[in-house]
Amino acid sequence: MSSNSFGKLLTVTTFGESHGPAIGCVVDGCPPGIAIAPDDFRHDLERRATGRTRHTSQRHEADEVEILSGVYEGVTTGTPIALLIRNTDQRSKDYAKIAEQFRPGHADYTYWQKYGIRDPRGGGRSSARETTMRVAAGVIAKKWLADRFGVQVQGWLSQIGEIVPHGFDLSAVENNPFFWPDTRQVTELELYMDALRKSGDSVGARVDVIATNVPPGWGEPIYGKLDGELASALMSINAVKGVEIGDGFGVVAQKGSEHRDQLTPQGFASNHAGGILGGISTGQPLRCSVAFKPTSSLRLPIDSLDTHGDVVEVITTGRHDPCVGIRATPICEAMVALVLMDQALRHRAQCGDVGEVTPRIPAQRDG
Amino acid sequence: MSSNSFGKLLTVTTFGESHGPAIGCVVDGCPPGIAIAPDDFRHDLERRATGRTRHTSQRHEADEVEILSGVYEGVTTGTPIALLIRNTDQRSKDYAKIAEQFRPGHADYTYWQKYGIRDPRGGGRSSARETTMRVAAGVIAKKWLADRFGVQVQGWLSQIGEIVPHGFDLSAVENNPFFWPDTRQVTELELYMDALRKSGDSVGARVDVIATNVPPGWGEPIYGKLDGELASALMSINAVKGVEIGDGFGVVAQKGSEHRDQLTPQGFASNHAGGILGGISTGQPLRCSVAFKPTSSLRLPIDSLDTHGDVVEVITTGRHDPCVGIRATPICEAMVALVLMDQALRHRAQCGDVGEVTPRIPAQRDG
Amino acid sequence: MSSNSFGKLLTVTTFGESHGPAIGCVVDGCPPGIAIAPDDFRHDLERRATGRTRHTSQRHEADEVEILSGVYEGVTTGTPIALLIRNTDQRSKDYAKIAEQFRPGHADYTYWQKYGIRDPRGGGRSSARETTMRVAAGVIAKKWLADRFGVQVQGWLSQIGEIVPHGFDLSAVENNPFFWPDTRQVTELELYMDALRKSGDSVGARVDVIATNVPPGWGEPIYGKLDGELASALMSINAVKGVEIGDGFGVVAQKGSEHRDQLTPQGFASNHAGGILGGISTGQPLRCSVAFKPTSSLRLPIDSLDTHGDVVEVITTGRHDPCVGIRATPICEAMVALVLMDQALRHRAQCGDVGEVTPRIPAQRDG
Amino acid sequence: MSSNSFGKLLTVTTFGESHGPAIGCVVDGCPPGIAIAPDDFRHDLERRATGRTRHTSQRHEADEVEILSGVYEGVTTGTPIALLIRNTDQRSKDYAKIAEQFRPGHADYTYWQKYGIRDPRGGGRSSARETTMRVAAGVIAKKWLADRFGVQVQGWLSQIGEIVPHGFDLSAVENNPFFWPDTRQVTELELYMDALRKSGDSVGARVDVIATNVPPGWGEPIYGKLDGELASALMSINAVKGVEIGDGFGVVAQKGSEHRDQLTPQGFASNHAGGILGGISTGQPLRCSVAFKPTSSLRLPIDSLDTHGDVVEVITTGRHDPCVGIRATPICEAMVALVLMDQALRHRAQCGDVGEVTPRIPAQRDG
Repeated sequence: MSSNSFGKLLTVTTFGESHGPAIGCVVDGCPPGIAIAPDDFRHDLERRATGRTRHTSQRHEADEVEILSGVYEGVTTGTPIALLIRNTDQRSKDYAKIAEQFRPGHADYTYWQKYGIRDPRGGGRSSARETTMRVAAGVIAKKWLADRFGVQVQGWLSQIGEIVPHGFDLSAVENNPFFWPDTRQVTELELYMDALRKSGDSVGARVDVIATNVPPGWGEPIYGKLDGELASALMSINAVKGVEIGDGFGVVAQKGSEHRDQLTPQGFASNHAGGILGGISTGQPLRCSVAFKPTSSLRLPIDSLDTHGDVVEVITTGRHDPCVGIRATPICEAMVALVLMDQALRHRAQCGDVGEVTPRIPAQRDG
Repeated sequence: MSSNSFGKLLTVTTFGESHGPAIGCVVDGCPPGIAIAPDDFRHDLERRATGRTRHTSQRHEADEVEILSGVYEGVTTGTPIALLIRNTDQRSKDYAKIAEQFRPGHADYTYWQKYGIRDPRGGGRSSARETTMRVAAGVIAKKWLADRFGVQVQGWLSQIGEIVPHGFDLSAVENNPFFWPDTRQVTELELYMDALRKSGDSVGARVDVIATNVPPGWGEPIYGKLDGELASALMSINAVKGVEIGDGFGVVAQKGSEHRDQLTPQGFASNHAGGILGGISTGQPLRCSVAFKPTSSLRLPIDSLDTHGDVVEVITTGRHDPCVGIRATPICEAMVALVLMDQALRHRAQCGDVGEVTPRIPAQRDG
Repeated sequence: MSSNSFGKLLTVTTFGESHGPAIGCVVDGCPPGIAIAPDDFRHDLERRATGRTRHTSQRHEADEVEILSGVYEGVTTGTPIALLIRNTDQRSKDYAKIAEQFRPGHADYTYWQKYGIRDPRGGGRSSARETTMRVAAGVIAKKWLADRFGVQVQGWLSQIGEIVPHGFDLSAVENNPFFWPDTRQVTELELYMDALRKSGDSVGARVDVIATNVPPGWGEPIYGKLDGELASALMSINAVKGVEIGDGFGVVAQKGSEHRDQLTPQGFASNHAGGILGGISTGQPLRCSVAFKPTSSLRLPIDSLDTHGDVVEVITTGRHDPCVGIRATPICEAMVALVLMDQALRHRAQCGDVGEVTPRIPAQRDG
Repeated sequence: MSSNSFGKLLTVTTFGESHGPAIGCVVDGCPPGIAIAPDDFRHDLERRATGRTRHTSQRHEADEVEILSGVYEGVTTGTPIALLIRNTDQRSKDYAKIAEQFRPGHADYTYWQKYGIRDPRGGGRSSARETTMRVAAGVIAKKWLADRFGVQVQGWLSQIGEIVPHGFDLSAVENNPFFWPDTRQVTELELYMDALRKSGDSVGARVDVIATNVPPGWGEPIYGKLDGELASALMSINAVKGVEIGDGFGVVAQKGSEHRDQLTPQGFASNHAGGILGGISTGQPLRCSVAFKPTSSLRLPIDSLDTHGDVVEVITTGRHDPCVGIRATPICEAMVALVLMDQALRHRAQCGDVGEVTPRIPAQRDG
């Protein structure tokens, strides 16, 4: 199977380099009868768009999605859906000078070692530009999950550098450029980001994602577990270095008597597991958390090597995010949605549109 | 592809329930010419074996591996290698009483919801018994990686509950029942585990794994990244709730100027990335860390539900580990080895047994 | 994905060499709730068994199937079903002398070229012994297809050498050792086979398979077409050199006005297509035909080469079928059933258990 | 894995409807360093192009290939290669009238039954228009196979209706519009086709393909056999109803003493097997043959049903080939080339770039 494809039954194949003529994806296995229009992609693409605020990269892409196939008279037909976005704002000159340099912390060196050749323009295939198509494909998955099951997938920023939210208000997340759950800290964050940008440095971030109304029974043991697939999907996002489900690394210091989520006639009494047991959804809210490293594209000079092994000073003058984690929120949502839709189809294949199993524990919401 | 199969080119398919007649696996895609004997499996199976010390489950399994196919006159032939282990010490009676109960924190409830039926004997398919075959398959991968590339994969316990190692001595790890890197703490750990067992409770743990001598260039962008595959492989292990690569969640609070690993003629100056950039190995030591939840099989009673939705009191009197993380060390090693061998074959397929790419940065060892 | 695995959602992985300790398979993706017992396998295994009549190989295998996993209290649980058959009647001595020889028409030479090593005992992995597990797995598929959809899969021998059936009576097929549809020719066939066996030679054969009550809509364009999957499944059977769907090669000389099957309110007026259009089932009987080459294991001596490149005379004195096509009938049925069940699950995944689409053309039966 | 994807390591994913905005493909797994330019696709696309002669459909497509990704400065980088062709000559009006009709012999009915919706414009996804991208992808495979191994893949028409070649001259094939191996019959074929077109009817055809210089050892037993993959690849081409390897159905009447290809120090004495034994290449020329049904798009009226189940008269007035098999020749070549390249990469993965195995039998050329 293609290494640029993701998903077993809902299969997304992406292609394209950051500064090539276009990026795109093919979404295969999508059920027929889903209404899809180019405008449906606008909202989420805008949420991850560069140049959205002064706190993110100033690259300006129209990101107009063209639907090339799989949709007839506005409805999916069951054939592969191809989506295309032309690259318009490329500025390859920004990158010409580093074509023969290895930027510390970048994939320049590893692509060179693997393939013996690389497309240096804007990081080529290793650029986060690729994630645009994940978000586009995720829009289809979000729509199907919401229409069929009422599943809602929502992410937010739960940490930037040392800063954590003081409070938590999900409704606040979409009302500030940081996907931050506490409006009172927005000014603080803006000042922090301005100072960071001036310094020429960058910082890491943590993104949390929750999916509600996920039915119990999704996920395929042993090597197709729901949490295993989520881990792969989220770790595959650029700059991710860690993935947690439920309490994540917090479980290391927990006692079993504290961790195990009690089943009661009113539902689960807690949700330390994050909505997954044995790789299968419990019906509780799905909770995961992702760690993003600080981008290594800095204006701060550093010595490195070139393709000849000689020492060179590297300064990255391109347009970059001081905190790549901010725009990663909709990307994480998209990957969670794609995993869930794929698992929903896989469950239907093996177990059918099964009726009620008794008892159906009411999901515990605020876990 | 089977959800009980793992790996694209080195494909491991496992089968078997905890208290069924046997467990086994089929390892397909293994190169011909590798010497394999039943004794080769003994060491790692012993490392993960139950009943190894009083600090782990007292289930005693001989775990004798029978090689059913794929090996002729002691050498692999390139055909599928089937390994079989008969279950001998089953004691199903231990579990009879909970056949209709949902143990909090277990997969009982989710298997029931997914399939409408489950094998309750010892947790059936969801039991950690399945991981025995991962370790067995991992032995083949470890052998090939060591012989072909000198790759060494070593894990250790880096945290139990609140306890962390005071010092780090890799040579100490195999000399105590806790895979602990600081011998001076062994007595402390024994006392801690004794008290825990007496209390009827359990605790979580963290396992670290390092792989050295991994050549640069292994890993397939975008959805077959080395770190993505590792995340999936490790998260698929029973009780795992978090996976980190390199500095993991530590990157959230890092600055880019701190995180980026500098390339020098003497090698990388640091290894915050954990040996992976852009999903491809750098040639540095591969570093990952895994969080294990505390087992939910406790002697401490708790109210739960039965399959009829009625409230029942659950007490688990079977043989269980107060800290499942301890025996998980060789399991984590096995999954890392299987991922690496699979990626090595995938790299060879696309890029061949490529010669030297210049420059070949010397790996930084002590990162 | 493993090259010893077959099927996308119903995945069958086989292992084992002809004269190794055992052969077996793992059937994954099977829906839960199907009643399966060891006795269920007996009938079809007996139909393909060696030593069934004097007209087939005199190797006598008990072929007792042990169910190792995936079945609890006689019912499938949704976890992988492992089936094992021990090899009992091996007589490796029969083959010792040809360990270093390449038998013309056998896989000896190609396995040697590919792997640089081979298991010479009874042809090792390339032996038709492997097909025993296809038949065993096929039993599960046949049962599910019959219970869920009333699908019946039946094969027969439609040619041996130059001999073709004079008449066609499906009920006759199971009442003679040749799966022949015209009882009146059985004596003629027995005399033919006796003479052939005496001569030390072998002959080819053609097997036809029909599947009735296949619902319309099964099959996934473009590269998962029902006919494409059937072609792959049937061509993968030992000694197969050709596969036809519907009229097969007969279409080359047909006119479009003759070939196209007319749709009428009473159903299709003909079935030249063999029940498949555009890679999707029409609801008509599925018709396919397979060509089996004559076995190359002959008592007739022939010069060949050994592994050193020297000329050697080869005489195969082992127990072999003068016409391997005879016993291939249940194998073909099994592969058709496995393809159909896999496609049924794939269809359900993407399109659900869809209700009636109008118009549902009544299937034309006698095509 | 996507059902619109083909190949395990060299994975081709196609998309697009006959009269949608565009068709395209993504070729993943291609080794780096292969020189590819848009002009490279022109020759084979022209060979399969409609409107090439008066004997084929008069639809005129420019078929200009745009390379969207995976190629940098004219060389493949190892990242997915996306190819796009805009549809220009669509004439949807030709098809408007049959939007609600089921054309006998077409996929109209089965797509409707499967998906409950279909794109009727030019047959939508089921149109042979899709094969354009197979030919484009095949160009890359042909180039790599020729450069690396000297493999040549050549097809020709071996039968139209009742007409078979009187002689065989491979050099003649590319010098007439019928890919016919005997120039002396071209006039006869032109008259035959003119009469056929006037009659409004169509006819079937047979295409043969040979691949020379294929190294021994390619092909993966058991379910990834070279012949199994070829059968799937060729059967997946529109209108194909039969596939043969080597002597194909001719083996049914053969004796084993006649069929088995003798190994001699000078090479194989014959090639009845068609270059494959046990699913692995022998080093002899690979021979396969494919049966194409007559197109069902006829000007001859016929009663059929519409989507409401009512009887309607169908007349297809679009632009169609009276013999689709003619233009299928380069499509068959492309599929053979794609299978061979995929198997070459798979072989390299498991067995490496193996050196000489002794004895390397000289291939027998004229088999």
